[in-house]
Amino acid sequence: MKTGQHVFPFEQGDKSMKSLLGGKGANLAEMARIGLPVPPGFTVTTEACNQYLRQGGGLWPELKGEIIENLNLLEQQTSRNFGGEQPLLLSVRSGAVISMPGMMDTVLNLGLNEKATESLAVETGNRRFALDCYRRFIQMFGDVVLKVGHYSFENVLTEIRQRKKVKTDAELNEADLEQVVKDFLDLVHEETGNEFPTDPQEQLFFAIEAVFKSWNTDRAVVYRKANRIPDDLGTAVNVQAMVFGNLGADSGTGVAFTRDPSTGERKLYGEYLLNAQGEDVVAGIRTPKPLEGLKKDLPAVYSRFIEICDILENHYRDMQDIEFTIERGKLYMLQTRTGKRTTSAALRVAVDMVKEELITKQEAIKRIEPHQLEHLMHWRIDPDAKKDIIASGLPASPGAASGKVIFDADRAEETAQAGEKVLLVRPETTPDDISGIIAAEGVLTSRGGMTSHAAVVARGMGKPCVCGCDELKIELGKGRFYIAGVEYSEGEVLSIDGSTGQVILGETSLIEPQFSDEFHELLGWADEIRRLKVRANADNPEDSRLALEMGAQGIGLCRTEHMFMAAERVPVVQKMILSSELKEREAALDELLPMQQSDFKGILKEMVGKPVTIRLLDPPLHEFLPDRENLLVEVDRLQREGGDAEKLAFKEELLQKVRNLSEFNPMLGHRGCRLGLVYPEIYRMQVRAIFMAVFELLEEGFPPDQLKPEIMIPLVGHRGEMEMMKQLVDNEAAAVFKEQGRQLSYLVGTMIELPRACLVADQLAESASFFSFGTNDLTQTTLGYSRDDSEGKFLPFYLQQKILKENPFAEIDREGVGRLVEIAIEKGRLTRPDIKLGICGEHGGDPSSIEFFHAAGLEYVSCSPYRIPIARLAAARASLYQIEY
Amino acid sequence: MKTGQHVFPFEQGDKSMKSLLGGKGANLAEMARIGLPVPPGFTVTTEACNQYLRQGGGLWPELKGEIIENLNLLEQQTSRNFGGEQPLLLSVRSGAVISMPGMMDTVLNLGLNEKATESLAVETGNRRFALDCYRRFIQMFGDVVLKVGHYSFENVLTEIRQRKKVKTDAELNEADLEQVVKDFLDLVHEETGNEFPTDPQEQLFFAIEAVFKSWNTDRAVVYRKANRIPDDLGTAVNVQAMVFGNLGADSGTGVAFTRDPSTGERKLYGEYLLNAQGEDVVAGIRTPKPLEGLKKDLPAVYSRFIEICDILENHYRDMQDIEFTIERGKLYMLQTRTGKRTTSAALRVAVDMVKEELITKQEAIKRIEPHQLEHLMHWRIDPDAKKDIIASGLPASPGAASGKVIFDADRAEETAQAGEKVLLVRPETTPDDISGIIAAEGVLTSRGGMTSHAAVVARGMGKPCVCGCDELKIELGKGRFYIAGVEYSEGEVLSIDGSTGQVILGETSLIEPQFSDEFHELLGWADEIRRLKVRANADNPEDSRLALEMGAQGIGLCRTEHMFMAAERVPVVQKMILSSELKEREAALDELLPMQQSDFKGILKEMVGKPVTIRLLDPPLHEFLPDRENLLVEVDRLQREGGDAEKLAFKEELLQKVRNLSEFNPMLGHRGCRLGLVYPEIYRMQVRAIFMAVFELLEEGFPPDQLKPEIMIPLVGHRGEMEMMKQLVDNEAAAVFKEQGRQLSYLVGTMIELPRACLVADQLAESASFFSFGTNDLTQTTLGYSRDDSEGKFLPFYLQQKILKENPFAEIDREGVGRLVEIAIEKGRLTRPDIKLGICGEHGGDPSSIEFFHAAGLEYVSCSPYRIPIARLAAARASLYQIEY
Repeated sequence: MKTGQHVFPFEQGDKSMKSLLGGKGANLAEMARIGLPVPPGFTVTTEACNQYLRQGGGLWPELKGEIIENLNLLEQQTSRNFGGEQPLLLSVRSGAVISMPGMMDTVLNLGLNEKATESLAVETGNRRFALDCYRRFIQMFGDVVLKVGHYSFENVLTEIRQRKKVKTDAELNEADLEQVVKDFLDLVHEETGNEFPTDPQEQLFFAIEAVFKSWNTDRAVVYRKANRIPDDLGTAVNVQAMVFGNLGADSGTGVAFTRDPSTGERKLYGEYLLNAQGEDVVAGIRTPKPLEGLKKDLPAVYSRFIEICDILENHYRDMQDIEFTIERGKLYMLQTRTGKRTTSAALRVAVDMVKEELITKQEAIKRIEPHQLEHLMHWRIDPDAKKDIIASGLPASPGAASGKVIFDADRAEETAQAGEKVLLVRPETTPDDISGIIAAEGVLTSRGGMTSHAAVVARGMGKPCVCGCDELKIELGKGRFYIAGVEYSEGEVLSIDGSTGQVILGETSLIEPQFSDEFHELLGWADEIRRLKVRANADNPEDSRLALEMGAQGIGLCRTEHMFMAAERVPVVQKMILSSELKEREAALDELLPMQQSDFKGILKEMVGKPVTIRLLDPPLHEFLPDRENLLVEVDRLQREGGDAEKLAFKEELLQKVRNLSEFNPMLGHRGCRLGLVYPEIYRMQVRAIFMAVFELLEEGFPPDQLKPEIMIPLVGHRGEMEMMKQLVDNEAAAVFKEQGRQLSYLVGTMIELPRACLVADQLAESASFFSFGTNDLTQTTLGYSRDDSEGKFLPFYLQQKILKENPFAEIDREGVGRLVEIAIEKGRLTRPDIKLGICGEHGGDPSSIEFFHAAGLEYVSCSPYRIPIARLAAARASLYQIEY
Repeated sequence: MKTGQHVFPFEQGDKSMKSLLGGKGANLAEMARIGLPVPPGFTVTTEACNQYLRQGGGLWPELKGEIIENLNLLEQQTSRNFGGEQPLLLSVRSGAVISMPGMMDTVLNLGLNEKATESLAVETGNRRFALDCYRRFIQMFGDVVLKVGHYSFENVLTEIRQRKKVKTDAELNEADLEQVVKDFLDLVHEETGNEFPTDPQEQLFFAIEAVFKSWNTDRAVVYRKANRIPDDLGTAVNVQAMVFGNLGADSGTGVAFTRDPSTGERKLYGEYLLNAQGEDVVAGIRTPKPLEGLKKDLPAVYSRFIEICDILENHYRDMQDIEFTIERGKLYMLQTRTGKRTTSAALRVAVDMVKEELITKQEAIKRIEPHQLEHLMHWRIDPDAKKDIIASGLPASPGAASGKVIFDADRAEETAQAGEKVLLVRPETTPDDISGIIAAEGVLTSRGGMTSHAAVVARGMGKPCVCGCDELKIELGKGRFYIAGVEYSEGEVLSIDGSTGQVILGETSLIEPQFSDEFHELLGWADEIRRLKVRANADNPEDSRLALEMGAQGIGLCRTEHMFMAAERVPVVQKMILSSELKEREAALDELLPMQQSDFKGILKEMVGKPVTIRLLDPPLHEFLPDRENLLVEVDRLQREGGDAEKLAFKEELLQKVRNLSEFNPMLGHRGCRLGLVYPEIYRMQVRAIFMAVFELLEEGFPPDQLKPEIMIPLVGHRGEMEMMKQLVDNEAAAVFKEQGRQLSYLVGTMIELPRACLVADQLAESASFFSFGTNDLTQTTLGYSRDDSEGKFLPFYLQQKILKENPFAEIDREGVGRLVEIAIEKGRLTRPDIKLGICGEHGGDPSSIEFFHAAGLEYVSCSPYRIPIARLAAARASLYQIEY
């Protein structure tokens, strides 16, 4: 490579030179280098493009000189003459480093003018072919280089077809094409004010400049911004001798994948057309034939093609997407690149290639983006089913579901218990609706966004959810709703697709998620590689079982409040909360104890041998009470209408208590360990329930070292909180052990979810044996964002304005929240070098966040069961990429 | 000082040995050392006490030896014999390093038994006196050493007085006293089971042990805990030869302050009694005479006393509180210590002593605790006025006020405008009530605590406030309230004392706050010393003027939202908020522009020459809308009762908008710059109003370099927010400058009130010229405490349990919030070494927090006008103490 060299013949390049030659150019050079049949050509580099753009346009003499030099070389290689006898025709194609729509694509047959066309006619013995090439060239060049509207050319063709009463251009004869050429040249003159350039060299320079300029079209700029592609990459230009697939029955063109891109099966998959150019395939006038047909049509070409596909796959060590042309029985490769594929195919290809010893397990893991696995994890709508889509909202939690529309959590529960499928439909959901969400197949709301309560809870439970469906108007009190003006009644059956946001009328047939052998195999390899453990956020035995199936190594977050939400428990919980005396409250807690105990027993039994982190009660107590607004209206009505004085008195008192407990900012209110400190009897009951559950299991014969409760104190911010809570747990444990006459081992730790907790982590670690980062709340406090509010208000705007690169509730904010996590780790280890560290916020299931947690040195991440496979893969990739840095 | 020496004769000590000899002992030694007449004695050290307590009791032989040795010395010095002829009598007093109630105080006349009493009788020629000494000794020793109940002795005396038909003990004759002594000895035997100890040495050892043990009485332990006095200080014991003030008309006892402790005036202030012991003064049977009387009674003693007072003041360089006894014409000093005084007196003494060249200005400043100044800052209830106290609540904001009870903000405003004084009385207040609080003289609420909305806002405005008055039951709708079952109507006149929490029926006469010359003089010295500047939080010209009077050097926080709250503006603000289209909103903003402009003009004019930091709109928009609950009930009524369909439709729409804007956690919601980004037109209007105001002032002839607006962007957490907001301000500024044909200088900076802002302060400093720490919100987010909620719920419990040492909203949490402040300063200076740094949270007026901000290197603190003097003094003290560290 010469200094300042801006043009490279294919022989001088290779696949490592992508950033200089673009993807297409580098691969053409590579194919030429390894001896595959590639029509000769050269590439003008991305650096030339950048220099061109920097200096504000104009090809400079040195660059022109280099191009002409390479053109001469090309004439020698092909024994043809650019613009002369046996004319050399060129294709000119853009080729960016990262493939990008919106840029100039291709000009074919460049180099033709009247004289060259006649030479071509003589040479091929086919004047119609030559004229057709010429009119195609004028049309493409006129369109993409001279910016004469595409439709103007089409109008000319339409007119002549109508005049000649034919349907396709192929039916036009020589004379017709002569007329077309003339009309095209006139059209260009008329629209641009200039004659169509007849000097081939001038044509080439024009085309190269056009490619350069196309880097900065509006569409290209927008696309780069949206996809965060740097603006200074530039595009290369590939100039290549034309080969013709339309020179008769022994010519043709086609595309192929070396494996099936939808299943990954190892068999060639592609199509071809004889006597056609690439654009004919695209135009869709003739239907291409499956690739196997070529075996019969042109056996020698077919077997050579098979051979080349093998070479390419072995060479590139990945499934290839190939374009080829056959000119009079000779095969030419026009492009090869890594083939796009479905997630299933990607898994199969990767696993197969490991078995074929083409790639290593590590490479296989790097080839699957963790996010891709999401597609496999959910029920889907049968793609072949008929769908009556009546509205659409935000795709808030993936998967599909059908069910009877129910507006109310209690009725949703009843209906589900009666064996019917339910879709919970509400303007928005609140913690009051949890039992309804649990009972429902899916959730549909008219308000709220991707991080609304409904969305967050549904994602946590792996239930499909469509949110913020504006077209849906619900009249809760009247039992009806409207979509696009049409009235429906509660009880109507709808389906939702939480992956697309579609709302569908009636029941739809669904496809169950299925996991292939390759899926399990690849994740098995990931397990060998990763250092981070993966636990599950699960609150009941069913979820625990699911989590185990997904590969969980324990439970990282068991939220005990969800256990309080079941319909039959709510009255007891409310009794407990509304107690004005300790005795009364303790009596209610005594009722709750066996319920909690049986919950814990179920979970611990599923997780025998694995650690189970149980978080003591966290939400503010008012979340368990009746809705304040409903109560207010009820009281007002009773007051005004008179009548049942006793009921009024009761409701007034209830309202008063709801008011006393209600908070301006419940997120920052009386919750977490603040509850445990003020109402220690609640936490004592929970601790007792945990240990009693363990003793029950011991009696059933489970070995004590296989039951590993880790008791987690939420929302700790001060040393004293942790000390007092640790003491409470230890005291209650000691009491139970004494009653049972036997000691158990257990851990007490804390959730780290406040900035202050991070800053004084050294103090907390004095009494906490583990930290589990609650990154949901830590994000809320560090950024000052209420998760329940921000989505509908400023978050979408922030993302759109790029103030935020990502939703911080989905991907961890490394500079803010991440920095606090690092501080906490460092400080925690100062006091307790072996402190156990994990994370149980929703970020535990996000690949980018997992990369961060791996680097930060955590022991485990915990996420909802359906994200465990993603986390396993992401953790493995984090290990692999970290080693390479 | 010998190694292991545990007993020091007065001659060996001095005032620097307080921690070893206790306060009293060190001062006795000091007085002896400088030649003042102190009865000889010795001190058993605090170390002896600690060793005694460590080893669980028992005086050890070496210690006993030292005591006996010193006793022998004392016999020589006094030429008296302990327990013999011319008996040596002792006083034994405790003397801790920090004076502490709850510990054993004093035993007098120790050393008496039957034999010594008779010797004393012979020596003094006054057997009645000797017997009286003996019975006093038995009584005191019995009470404080032997723990025989005080009342048992009193009963004996009462009985004999009744029998003898006399009123006082002084009327008992020799025989009576002989009987009393006998009865006392029997009583001790009866109650303790032992004979009263007659061996003087034994008496002394008993007494010393009793003092040691009293260090750990329950009361003493509780007191130390409450006052954070370390438990390992221990107490010393002072053993001193008795002198007698009750040996006739040339004997006496008294106390004196070297200056007037209530005004600080430089004149001796004290009282004395002739022929009396100290306890007689305390008992209050005889009325002591003003000290001047001594001049006539005992002129030589008097002039000697004057002389000694001068010596002591000059020696200690502070006002002294002195105890003395005169024994047969000879003056003895029994104690001297720094005298307690009122705030006014403290100021006067300090300033006078500087003028007398007794102390330096620096010392004067160290002598005034900043908190003391609070007492001077408020209207007080005339202490001589009659008060009918009918209830009491929390003293939430100091000062006193009287006014008509009004339940509603709007009516409060109307009533005040009609010229009547108003007391806003509500169950609790919300931001809706701001205009009412502004209009009212003071605020009284039945709910909420020291950090409730009412309390915080009232403190900010310097209005008196009593919160959480449980006894007050308000029936808002019925225009009446109840206190202790008595019904009152709205309109009743009440008074409140926000310094004590008292609620008083009717109007009360009030005393205006007045600032003495000394107040101004001392603060002037503070201004010379302090490095920290002090600015004010002020939102209108009146407050600005007040702030200047208080010594503000600028405005650190002008909250523009308070300007939106005035009654005539609220409709325009609501129109702006409820606009569904930009045009509509801009029209409403056009109406607001001249109002804001005139607000800013007024403030900037007051503050000419000083910087004014104006914060752009901060609170969520729903704070300006009608109350959601009221609206809900109204809509429900209209819906059920039918009737005015148009009104219903309007209210329904309004409710819908209120609902759309309402938030689960408004503190973490759509506020601050999040508003400015989504509705840039609001901020643009405000910026325009600021600069237009400056141009108006320029036209009035004010010089441009004297008008210094600093525009502050609230709630920034991300670099992009600051960049975009800076751009908005600069653009609008440029537009106004272009219209006006003239440039102005200004600053743009941000409030730092989110943990994330601290962690990325380097990024924010790229576009922010200043940081002002909003420590209120930073405390809320760092600790995860909602200020509006935590007070009534867990905060009092946390303080009581010592999980929190201080209310973090009053005194900055150094480990959490403070650490973030330090991080932000460090990072901000990385990018912009000369970045302007201040703090405008309420902590800006708290002395301990100011000390922290000084050390952290801020340029200024900003606080409410009434706290400025406190801040000025605290800042000076921070400078002084930092230098000394």
